[in-house]
Formats: sequence, structure tokens, C-alpha cells
Amino acid sequence: MPPVRCARCGAEDARYHISFARTSLCAACYVRYYERKLKATVLKYGMLKVMRRPLVALSGGKDSTSALVGLKSVFPDLEVTALYIDLGIPGYSEESERVVRKVTDELGVELIVHRLKNDGRTVPELARGRFKRKPCAICGTVKRYVMNKIAIETGHDTVVTGHNLDDTVEVLFELYRRGLLEEAVRLRPVLLGDGVRLTNRVKPLFEMTDEEDLYYVDAKGIEVVESWCPLVRGAKTVSRKVLIHEIESKIPGFRHTLLKAHVKRFLPVLERAISQPELKRCAVCGYPTTSDVCSYCRAMRPVTLKRDVGSSGAGASNGEEGLR
Amino acid sequence: MPPVRCARCGAEDARYHISFARTSLCAACYVRYYERKLKATVLKYGMLKVMRRPLVALSGGKDSTSALVGLKSVFPDLEVTALYIDLGIPGYSEESERVVRKVTDELGVELIVHRLKNDGRTVPELARGRFKRKPCAICGTVKRYVMNKIAIETGHDTVVTGHNLDDTVEVLFELYRRGLLEEAVRLRPVLLGDGVRLTNRVKPLFEMTDEEDLYYVDAKGIEVVESWCPLVRGAKTVSRKVLIHEIESKIPGFRHTLLKAHVKRFLPVLERAISQPELKRCAVCGYPTTSDVCSYCRAMRPVTLKRDVGSSGAGASNGEEGLR
Repeated sequence: MPPVRCARCGAEDARYHISFARTSLCAACYVRYYERKLKATVLKYGMLKVMRRPLVALSGGKDSTSALVGLKSVFPDLEVTALYIDLGIPGYSEESERVVRKVTDELGVELIVHRLKNDGRTVPELARGRFKRKPCAICGTVKRYVMNKIAIETGHDTVVTGHNLDDTVEVLFELYRRGLLEEAVRLRPVLLGDGVRLTNRVKPLFEMTDEEDLYYVDAKGIEVVESWCPLVRGAKTVSRKVLIHEIESKIPGFRHTLLKAHVKRFLPVLERAISQPELKRCAVCGYPTTSDVCSYCRAMRPVTLKRDVGSSGAGASNGEEGLR
Repeated sequence: MPPVRCARCGAEDARYHISFARTSLCAACYVRYYERKLKATVLKYGMLKVMRRPLVALSGGKDSTSALVGLKSVFPDLEVTALYIDLGIPGYSEESERVVRKVTDELGVELIVHRLKNDGRTVPELARGRFKRKPCAICGTVKRYVMNKIAIETGHDTVVTGHNLDDTVEVLFELYRRGLLEEAVRLRPVLLGDGVRLTNRVKPLFEMTDEEDLYYVDAKGIEVVESWCPLVRGAKTVSRKVLIHEIESKIPGFRHTLLKAHVKRFLPVLERAISQPELKRCAVCGYPTTSDVCSYCRAMRPVTLKRDVGSSGAGASNGEEGLR
């Protein structure tokens, strides 16, 4: 194949083809393009005004790593801490932690590691338990809870996540299809907290595709976890992403159009029409919830109770005997 | 292939397989099923309260024919008139008119025929003209205008159309994708008029699929135009319907879920949030419009003006010289 020339500088090694923009760039120009876009997104949505002391949630994957590396590159003065949640997924979690430690070391960013097993149950245990929730659903709940709690406890005002355009569009498609407007109204680049027990949440990669994030870490030569989580097999989220790409092949620009429609047209209407559910304090942990006991405490409780009554900790790997 | 038994009566000729309901029925049971569902839809959305003197717009196709035949079967006392608009599409329009005359004769329903060429220009002429609008778009505009005008002039309070679930979902998908909420809020089974120059519009087949309508005319042994309009070639509406069916094959029930989400979740929110544009009277014809001159008069005007200044009527088949 003849070498492709960079559309910006003319160099002969334009390895990064941005499909939706139909343009190819060399590594140096791609990094400049990506960081300029990241900066524009952060400023457009007023993210910088929100995050004084951000805690970046790192999974070791391409997206959250891009968020951390990108933010540090574009805003070097931003005081950033990283959080890694050890979900206790054998093999996968160790490999992710290794990669996360490497990138935070290289950047000189402080890293907080939170191990879920210290809270009572790992994600595989939660997924196996009598709750029988899909691993991705329970994992999402757990991560949201831990990110917020650790941020509050360590004095960070904002949790930064690597959610990108593809993540948002995939969920949007599902929420619109089913008319779940209360959830759709929360799909935003910036979600404000309450300043007490709920942090702000910010998504600097809101307008980046999977492809753009992958190219960025590649162009910067940063190692990320490339394998998929072993628990994701058969998850709806994967088949939905495949479907979205099939629709995109029929309607080029589908994802970008839908995201734009959501932000510019739907969100203003939904924000006015949908009242957010009132938040209470969880009777167990005190963190915000819409019910009496938050879903994190409900998931973790059986083990905690078992321990409280003095049963063997070794049996905690299976929640079948746990109390409801 | 072994004969399939009817899921209702057990007869051996269950020719009608309703794919989304995964059930097969014989002709008699299918007709009963369809008419019961039609009746339920009409009552659920309060259509009967709205249409005292309905004018059913007939194209000769499976949907509008099902609407007329279904309404007459379920509500024999309903005073129904039919309208056929001769769009002037060579071959297709003559064949459609023949079929429409046949079914209205059989039902003993009065038929009004309106010929577009008497208004100045046929649909092929409009599509060819300097406006260069897509045939389906201009045809839709023209039909909506003529249906309303004829209904008002002949004392009918309501226009009934054969728009079904597939039509609505196809448009919904496009409007949601692009965030066209002002148009999405008008995708309803019942649209009220102003009681003066704008009739009510009612869609009794709002919850029927293409398949259900096709089966109904087949089971009743009613002839319909089966060929597609020759001008539809390459229309977006066709490729969108194909896409929707591909999505449905991946997410069974997609169309029904989306329609339900629209009616139950989105419409109440959109109705409160979106203010309808104020209607003025068209400076030329006096019928409602959002601009000074309605799109029908703008499309027809060049020819009218040419005629007004005395040029040869024979040249009217091409609008190239028409005034803007």
C-alpha cells in the first residue's frame, strides 16, 4: 500500500484515519488535533469552572487513560488525582492496575487505589450472588458509588470519567427507544453535585469516538489494557454498539447527529419537563440515594451482616447464603 | 410444508402469520383480530368523538383501503365519504383510481375525485420544476393541502388517513435522530383542527404494521394497488424503512417499543414544552400556513401567474419558466 500523506503537514506516515472526518493524520498532528478538540470540549461545556480538584477515575482502558493524559497535557496546572478501583476480576484487575500504575507514575500523578474486596464483595461475587444482576449493571452501580465516596472523603469536588461519544450514543439509543426520559436527562457532559455528599461529574471525552481515544493513546505511545473485561461476554451494551455501527454505515454521521440533537434539542426540553427525583440519605452509609438504602449498600449488605454475626470471612466469595 | 393451524379456531389454513405476535391465523379469525384491534385503537384515542363527518383519503394502496374498509366494517353507521386525489402520475394514477372506484362502489361510499392538474400542475411536473423538490416531499405537501381544503369545502370535520405504525416509526426515527421536536410533537393519532379552515386529522391505523394492513385487505379479498409509485425510487423513506426492519431483526419489538415510548413518554413532555407555531392565513388561498404564502400556493403559483398573464396553457407541463 502506498504511504498515506498527513492531511495537515504532508508527512508520509499518516497512520490515523479519522473515519467520520474522512481525513488521515500523522502521530504528531493527530495528537495536536485530539488535544485541541479536548480543550474545546472542556471549555465549551464549562468543565474547567466546575472542576477545581478533579479525581480522574482510571480503568486502564483507552478512554479513561486518554482523559487523564489529555487533561494533563492540555491543562498542565490542573491539580489532578487518579483513582483506580480494584474490582477483583481475576487476571483482568491485576493487569489493569499494572497499566494504571505505569501511566500515573510516568505523569507524576497521585494514585488512589480502592479495593472492592475490602468493602465486602468483588464484582464477580456480586454478579454471582443471589441478586443475579448482570455484571455490567452491578459494576456500573458499584463504580459510581465508590468514585463519589472516595472523591468526597479525599476532598475532590469532581469525578472525571472517560465516557465518550460512543458510550453516550449507545445508551441514548436505548433510553430513547424505551422512553426513559428521567435517565436520558442525566446523559450530559457535566452533572453538578450538591457540594456536600455528591460530587460533580464531568466527561471531557463527551464528543470523542472510541476510535479517536484509541488513536490518541497509540499516538502518544501509552500502554493501555486492550483486552475486554472477561465478564462483558454477552452484555447488551456490546451488541448495541455493534448495532449503532451498522446504523452508522447506513446513515453516515448518525452518532454525531444523534448526540448533537440530544444536547441541543432534547436536553433543554427534558431539563424543563423532567423533575429529578428527590435524593435522601442512605440509612446505612449516609450517601445520596432515591430509596431508603442505596443500591451499593443493598448489594454489599449480606456479607457485611454475615461478618457482623461472626461467620467465617472465607465464605464471603459466594453470596447465596447472604440475607436479602 | 405441513398446513399451519389457526391459533384461534384451529382451522388448517392459518395463512396469516403476525410476526411480532408470533401467531398464525386463518382469514376469518384474522379479520376479527384486525377489526377488534382497529376498534380498540379508535376508542382508545377518542377518534370517534372527533370525527362526526370523516373524509377518508384513499390512495388505492393497502393502508388507506384498510382504513376505509375497516372503519365501515367496525362502525357501519359512520357517515363516511372517500377522497381520491389524482396526482397525475402516468399509469400509476389511472390504476389507483380504478381500484379506488371499485372499493368505494362495493362499499356504497360516496367518492370525491380531485384532479391536481386542474389546480395547475401534477406531481411529476412539480417534481421536475425549478423547485427541484424531492417528489415524495412535494407530494406530501400537496396531499395534506388538498385533503384539508376539500374536507372544509364539502363540510367534513375530519380527514382520515392510512398512516400506520411503520410510517410513524420511520418518521419518528428520523425526527429523534435530528432532534426535530416541533415535528415530532405532531406525530400523533389525533390532531385537532381549528374548526374553521383546518380539519381534524385522525389515523385509525396508528398501531397497525404494514404487514397487518396487507393481510387485512388480502383476507377480505379486496383489490389494492400493489406496485410502488414510480417516483418513489431512491427516496429516503424507503431506505429508512429497510433500516428499521434491520434494527427490528436485532431488537425484536423495536417498532412497537419506540411507538409506545413516543406516545406515553415523549408526547406528554413535548406537548408541554414545544409551542406550536402560530398559523396565519395564506395571502393567496386563505388556508392556514406558518408563512405568508402557503407551500401549496408557492408550488402552484408559477403556472397560475403564467396563465393569468395569458400565456399558452399547453406550456404548463414544465415549470422551468415559472416565477419564483
